[in-house]
Amino acid sequence: MDEVDDGGRPSPCVLEEFVADPRSARHSPTAPRPDLSTSRVGLTDATCCLGWERELDRQEDGVLLENKNAVIYGGGGSVGGAVARAFAREGAKVFLVGRSLAALDKVADEITAAGGVAEKGGGIDVSFNAISHGDVHGAPLVQMPFEDFARPIMTAMRAQFLTARAAARHMVKRGSGVIMAITATTARMTIPNVGGTGVTFDAIESLCRQWGCELGPLGIRVVWLQTTGLPEAIDDSGNLFPNYGTGKAMTREEIIDWMQEKTMLNRLTSLAEVGSVAAFMASDQASAMTAVAANITCGSVPTR
Amino acid sequence: MDEVDDGGRPSPCVLEEFVADPRSARHSPTAPRPDLSTSRVGLTDATCCLGWERELDRQEDGVLLENKNAVIYGGGGSVGGAVARAFAREGAKVFLVGRSLAALDKVADEITAAGGVAEKGGGIDVSFNAISHGDVHGAPLVQMPFEDFARPIMTAMRAQFLTARAAARHMVKRGSGVIMAITATTARMTIPNVGGTGVTFDAIESLCRQWGCELGPLGIRVVWLQTTGLPEAIDDSGNLFPNYGTGKAMTREEIIDWMQEKTMLNRLTSLAEVGSVAAFMASDQASAMTAVAANITCGSVPTR
Amino acid sequence: MDEVDDGGRPSPCVLEEFVADPRSARHSPTAPRPDLSTSRVGLTDATCCLGWERELDRQEDGVLLENKNAVIYGGGGSVGGAVARAFAREGAKVFLVGRSLAALDKVADEITAAGGVAEKGGGIDVSFNAISHGDVHGAPLVQMPFEDFARPIMTAMRAQFLTARAAARHMVKRGSGVIMAITATTARMTIPNVGGTGVTFDAIESLCRQWGCELGPLGIRVVWLQTTGLPEAIDDSGNLFPNYGTGKAMTREEIIDWMQEKTMLNRLTSLAEVGSVAAFMASDQASAMTAVAANITCGSVPTR
Amino acid sequence: MDEVDDGGRPSPCVLEEFVADPRSARHSPTAPRPDLSTSRVGLTDATCCLGWERELDRQEDGVLLENKNAVIYGGGGSVGGAVARAFAREGAKVFLVGRSLAALDKVADEITAAGGVAEKGGGIDVSFNAISHGDVHGAPLVQMPFEDFARPIMTAMRAQFLTARAAARHMVKRGSGVIMAITATTARMTIPNVGGTGVTFDAIESLCRQWGCELGPLGIRVVWLQTTGLPEAIDDSGNLFPNYGTGKAMTREEIIDWMQEKTMLNRLTSLAEVGSVAAFMASDQASAMTAVAANITCGSVPTR
Repeated sequence: MDEVDDGGRPSPCVLEEFVADPRSARHSPTAPRPDLSTSRVGLTDATCCLGWERELDRQEDGVLLENKNAVIYGGGGSVGGAVARAFAREGAKVFLVGRSLAALDKVADEITAAGGVAEKGGGIDVSFNAISHGDVHGAPLVQMPFEDFARPIMTAMRAQFLTARAAARHMVKRGSGVIMAITATTARMTIPNVGGTGVTFDAIESLCRQWGCELGPLGIRVVWLQTTGLPEAIDDSGNLFPNYGTGKAMTREEIIDWMQEKTMLNRLTSLAEVGSVAAFMASDQASAMTAVAANITCGSVPTR
Repeated sequence: MDEVDDGGRPSPCVLEEFVADPRSARHSPTAPRPDLSTSRVGLTDATCCLGWERELDRQEDGVLLENKNAVIYGGGGSVGGAVARAFAREGAKVFLVGRSLAALDKVADEITAAGGVAEKGGGIDVSFNAISHGDVHGAPLVQMPFEDFARPIMTAMRAQFLTARAAARHMVKRGSGVIMAITATTARMTIPNVGGTGVTFDAIESLCRQWGCELGPLGIRVVWLQTTGLPEAIDDSGNLFPNYGTGKAMTREEIIDWMQEKTMLNRLTSLAEVGSVAAFMASDQASAMTAVAANITCGSVPTR
Repeated sequence: MDEVDDGGRPSPCVLEEFVADPRSARHSPTAPRPDLSTSRVGLTDATCCLGWERELDRQEDGVLLENKNAVIYGGGGSVGGAVARAFAREGAKVFLVGRSLAALDKVADEITAAGGVAEKGGGIDVSFNAISHGDVHGAPLVQMPFEDFARPIMTAMRAQFLTARAAARHMVKRGSGVIMAITATTARMTIPNVGGTGVTFDAIESLCRQWGCELGPLGIRVVWLQTTGLPEAIDDSGNLFPNYGTGKAMTREEIIDWMQEKTMLNRLTSLAEVGSVAAFMASDQASAMTAVAANITCGSVPTR
Repeated sequence: MDEVDDGGRPSPCVLEEFVADPRSARHSPTAPRPDLSTSRVGLTDATCCLGWERELDRQEDGVLLENKNAVIYGGGGSVGGAVARAFAREGAKVFLVGRSLAALDKVADEITAAGGVAEKGGGIDVSFNAISHGDVHGAPLVQMPFEDFARPIMTAMRAQFLTARAAARHMVKRGSGVIMAITATTARMTIPNVGGTGVTFDAIESLCRQWGCELGPLGIRVVWLQTTGLPEAIDDSGNLFPNYGTGKAMTREEIIDWMQEKTMLNRLTSLAEVGSVAAFMASDQASAMTAVAANITCGSVPTR
């Protein structure tokens, strides 16, 4: 009953209902689009959920996630979308949860265009949480209201805890499953003027370790990705970015350059790399990985 | 104005007021005890504040914290008390902030008995936050209400952020100061059934790194202690402790044995060690340390 | 000319010769077996080299290492063999280097039976060093001769440095390539009575970071695997194992149990997992990974 | 008997002899200088050994290392000298081991001028190894002869292993003691063109962990310091320094600036800080520290 006051966030009962009858949440290129308004679940009142399955036109041994059902929170965002496309490419049935139907539709159309079709789903094999956290950057902590500092931490803790718990309760019954998250180098590089972002990412990683040690004996793995800033997801509206200790506000090109200089490969991570690595980590080929990150930071933060 | 809704927690104005006129908050063995009710500031309505200064009967070069003013949040607890005693022994004027006047009084009496006298203070040189966080142990996350998981994280983030920000705003003006915290091996050893404790400690360490990188150029250091469980602070009421993955509830002796086995020195950290190391880290002898921990875990978690 | 006194270890000239004309080192199920004695290169006088290519009977997009040439040092051992099989399965041409022709032959026959055929190779795309280091376990350092402690460190440093340098000199010309190594939890768990093994693994990881930061700007990635003990590679001759601080010598079953208890998944890593993860790390799908490990320790050492 | 071929390096027998009768190795301002040629022990034929004790003119509780005997390898160098002065200031009897009598004499004179007197010593309480390793910087690994890469690693492993083993064998009998080393950020910051230096420091830290886990149950602690580059120890002969990936050779001022930019405190560690922290780590006040570093890198590498 502790979910009662969670204010519309995904609770086990809602999620399991969704898993038990996901038809209304999925569509097919040849079928009329389902009434998606009936399947809205998730983080806020406006959260929507869509589901796809990639048409298995490849050999069975050529895909990593055949017969896997994956739910992706934040599926309408850059990262969630990239993960969704990669999961679908590797044979998974993908369910998207997000706040904006339009954003989910865009990802859905891309997957459909690439051969995805609707199909009735079973349980959840993979839960990937890629939601954003409402971070506030650009001011030092000493000038920041507590609420601006704390918001991303609490948003992340709530979302990561509740979606992982919902997935875990389901996965425990089957004795298998993979729970996933994503963090960025903001935490590991200790950069000024990022407000609560560094703490948020460190807290997400810590929570993944905690879930990992408790769920490991039950057959459930918990893994996450560590990325650099993702150029394809960086605002290109022409707005300036904070100085992050560099002494001056930066244009999009300048901030990308600044981040690239901190890598060994002299470039940043692509969304395609996020997707491919996420798919591998979710697959049985990574079955010896739990409580660990896949570090895809182009060498920004070497493993120690 | 962001402090307006912080509900009685230490805000810069309250703390600076306290610093500017701390007389009412301190007492002397030879003077009548001040009316402490007038100096209640801090984390809750019941929070109290006391101040002492050690009588400098040693040679000047024999003490680490001469002429330093230190405020200790959670000063009535085991850790806060140990730190207070060590700081006073090393020559600091010590101000205690806590929720229980009786607990503060006990520490105050010990310090007084050891030679501490009241004296008018100046600014803050050291801020040490050792408050407790209301952790809930003993159940796996999968059975835990979100609120029980989140409480210690939010309690710690709020207290650490606000007390550090208050101290930092004061220290920035003088271009020096040391902000301190304490964590335990619960985080680094990834133990099941500790609820949000591991995440809390990792978040505290992450926040210290963030403060460290932002305040370093301003001359302010941020350091923390990493301890094992502290036998002197472990409940000896006869209650059983959770199993922490060991398969059965543990008596006080069993849990101490279980923790000792995880160390290299086959023993746990003492409060005296906490105090001595805290005093050293707070002193100018540790002036090259910031954004780092003093690891006093008896070898439980080697430096990597 | 610094290779002159390296006593038969792989030097750039020898390796490049081998790369330029590897025909004699490979064989086909339909062709007479080549005279392998002519292709002996490597770590000692007895080192042998064999090469294979997997028959590409799968779709191009179904394999990770199509058109890649991989050289595996220690290819006759458990790990090297597992990596070789996985690389071949994913479409790579595999070259094995080791000290025992019989051991290489065994791996070669397995690959051949699975469809591998001989083919003329080009340059090196992947270099994987999985040689053993002559570790001495079972005595504390305080009783250990320096030579026994130092042997694995020096063996590893020499082999890892020289094979990586040889590969790097070749890969620099093409602006791409992946250099790989493997370590075990012996280092990260800080276990007594392992002699120089922990230092050896830490030094290998450190060297990988060093190579990574120097070769990253040149397009070459350097990655490694971190495993638990590998049951399939553990001596099953009935000999007892050292006590490793447990107080008594252990049978094979006891040592496996002891290692399993330290994991979250309650099991150890399999050779198949080593192979699959190695193949992924070597592939372009892991193109954002350098100076990092794939941690496949079943949760023994969570990412921090 | 494994020491037989160690070529003059400190072996247990030589060191214990030195400990048993250190008179000839120490001198007093009021006594004739002893014949130091009889006390030459150590790393090479030219290694010398001197011993001092600080005159205890301070109160007993004002010093950290009263009645402690400390041997410092590399005592004639910048770091060893700073440690020696700090140890002596804190009341320890200090024995210096080094390769150059002139360098030892300089440190000895400084200690004497500050009040040190000769006295007969007992066993060893602290062993600090601060020798240099013959690193070669300025070229990428891909162009470096193996010997240049391996020399510092082997020099460090041999010296750290043999001096620690000698001290440990002695300390085991008394059930107490502290073994110490020092590393620099070269390892943790993963800088190009440092040859084997990064690996050397990582290997030293790994060896300290190994010693720590084996010696902890016997009452012996093993700790080390992590520093930035030390300006007072940087060559001021006007020679240029390597580019370390910066694109051009650097003057002394440029290399100091470049290192300072990587710290949070915008400055580098001083020798006085090295000495003070070393003295604290060696003292009983740090009795809960083993297998850990004191990170005095001015915030270059935050604790994670």
